[in-house]
Amino acid sequence: MTENSTPPRLFIPGPVEIEREVLEEMQRPMIGHRAPEFSALGEDLNRLAKGLFRSDDPVYILTSSATGAMECSVRNCVREKVLCFVNGAFSERFFKICQVNGKEATRIDVDWGMAVKPGLVKEALAGGDYDAVTIVHNETSTGVLSPLEQIAEVVSEERREILLLVDGVTSVGSIPIEFGKYPIDVLLTGSQKSLALPPGLALMAVSERARKRAEEVESRGSYFDLLTIHNYWLKNQTPCTPAVSLMYALRKRLEGILADEDGWYGAHLERAELTRSWARERFKVFPEEGYESVSLTCIENTRGISIVDLNAFLRVHGVIIANGYGILREKTFRIGHMGANDVDQHRHLLALLDRFLEGERAN
Amino acid sequence: MTENSTPPRLFIPGPVEIEREVLEEMQRPMIGHRAPEFSALGEDLNRLAKGLFRSDDPVYILTSSATGAMECSVRNCVREKVLCFVNGAFSERFFKICQVNGKEATRIDVDWGMAVKPGLVKEALAGGDYDAVTIVHNETSTGVLSPLEQIAEVVSEERREILLLVDGVTSVGSIPIEFGKYPIDVLLTGSQKSLALPPGLALMAVSERARKRAEEVESRGSYFDLLTIHNYWLKNQTPCTPAVSLMYALRKRLEGILADEDGWYGAHLERAELTRSWARERFKVFPEEGYESVSLTCIENTRGISIVDLNAFLRVHGVIIANGYGILREKTFRIGHMGANDVDQHRHLLALLDRFLEGERAN
Repeated sequence: MTENSTPPRLFIPGPVEIEREVLEEMQRPMIGHRAPEFSALGEDLNRLAKGLFRSDDPVYILTSSATGAMECSVRNCVREKVLCFVNGAFSERFFKICQVNGKEATRIDVDWGMAVKPGLVKEALAGGDYDAVTIVHNETSTGVLSPLEQIAEVVSEERREILLLVDGVTSVGSIPIEFGKYPIDVLLTGSQKSLALPPGLALMAVSERARKRAEEVESRGSYFDLLTIHNYWLKNQTPCTPAVSLMYALRKRLEGILADEDGWYGAHLERAELTRSWARERFKVFPEEGYESVSLTCIENTRGISIVDLNAFLRVHGVIIANGYGILREKTFRIGHMGANDVDQHRHLLALLDRFLEGERAN
Repeated sequence: MTENSTPPRLFIPGPVEIEREVLEEMQRPMIGHRAPEFSALGEDLNRLAKGLFRSDDPVYILTSSATGAMECSVRNCVREKVLCFVNGAFSERFFKICQVNGKEATRIDVDWGMAVKPGLVKEALAGGDYDAVTIVHNETSTGVLSPLEQIAEVVSEERREILLLVDGVTSVGSIPIEFGKYPIDVLLTGSQKSLALPPGLALMAVSERARKRAEEVESRGSYFDLLTIHNYWLKNQTPCTPAVSLMYALRKRLEGILADEDGWYGAHLERAELTRSWARERFKVFPEEGYESVSLTCIENTRGISIVDLNAFLRVHGVIIANGYGILREKTFRIGHMGANDVDQHRHLLALLDRFLEGERAN
């Protein structure tokens, strides 16, 4: 690869394509993170991030990937026993993060491709004295969107002191989120997914009772200590030097989304529906019906094509998609709908896929 | 402050001024972190970072501030008992990070403004059965550079299984570092200091015996688990999605430094010496003689001027410096020599400071 060759256009489920004018925000001159210039930026982000999550509770901005925010939620909000619903690779990661942080984690497996249902949650909660639940809202490994609102109601009905910790990495920003309306305690995402920014930041909405929980949890550590983060965020600052340049880009993005939420979310749905109907005619949409993700479409490789060959073909034509994740590697492939690829660029991608399929038939 | 006003030129000890051509690296189109494009970048960074640290051991790149790397070193490399030398605010932070991560931390205080000396280290080590030592190479709060090489020899002579964990946040990149030549186990820094990049990345050189130690330490967590980080870095990748845009800027910077190390380090020393001699004629250099930092000069406010007024005056003229840190707030002020302010810009700053002092005399 030569240094200046243009990389392929990304139709993977993150990182994603980013508009030039958003990247340009990172050209702003550097500022001190304890200077009034930063507080002004922090104040904007404080307000805008609450707008995105539709939250009255604070939405913290961490300089880390979303995995860091997952660890933050576990170290601060799990007292002892946590119930983890695993229906894909990222919900399994949430479970493992609980384990390696010394929490007593119970894992409830759901077939990959299936959603986590409120009935199962209710049943599983009865099996133990849990103080927290982890769930992935939209499983990036399988393209499944679980019914978060109903799950939140069930957890909340069960016992008020059970905290609901939600990985919203590929849901927040691709579908409207109502953090304030449902009893959710932590909802987190990363910058390089539906927010269509470079990686390096995580956003995390945290309920007041999750913050209260942190006060009674030992060994919260330093970098992800929620109480310290909260105290600084009250002053529109962060405990450590944050990724200022990325924050400028984040501000620009959040302003754009909030200026036209219907347009932003509608465009994601349009791309997803286009791709799903293309896939249904040629393959099979992998997730169970009614629970298909809006941020990516996971397609079952019912024709047994070589995904490696497919991506090699696409790369020649300047685009890439994602193979299946982990155990689904050659069994599925995934097309991301996040980022700056509009519906016409999706049509172009699908036309390329059709050309590949025609070539397969000809062989 | 209007949205598009130019922020003041930074003479604070980080974040620092950054050249346009380095910021422009962040305009590159996004790439997938599991794609060959990333592995090529990772391979470059792997090699260049080892060059910067003069290390045969790997230098990992974390998406976090340097505080995250400090926590990483503590969670992975301290088995139980750690001896922390505290001669300023950041070495105190290192001690506190040990505490909040459940380590048995013993604190040895040294007067702010004084260096940590090998004799003291030898003496303190005899007082307990420590398995690790923390030290800050260059205390940003006091402008003191401790003699790392001699300390490393002393720790190593004492007992080979004591690991030496070093915060090099404001030393790495402003003075030549020989990680491979001395028995240092962890040496870490952040991107927004002497590397003159936006904040958001930490670099961390880790010895083989520190990695071996991690294998026997429980509760290393997830995001900062050294063994996982190491295994991915062998493939020029990171466990989680890293801050790719910042990494492009890092590559550009490291290429620049390594192309002319003498020029790079010489320029830092020239700016520091200019500032020190200015300060000696008008005030007093705060750190004890012979241990003055090269990356910043901490000046004792022997004339009792108002640092708040001074910075207000400087801000009107488009620059800012830093007040004293914590307990030294009005007792000292600090001028950073890191980043894209050349010696002429330093002269301009010092001339502004003289104008302020003249105004003080006139009042």
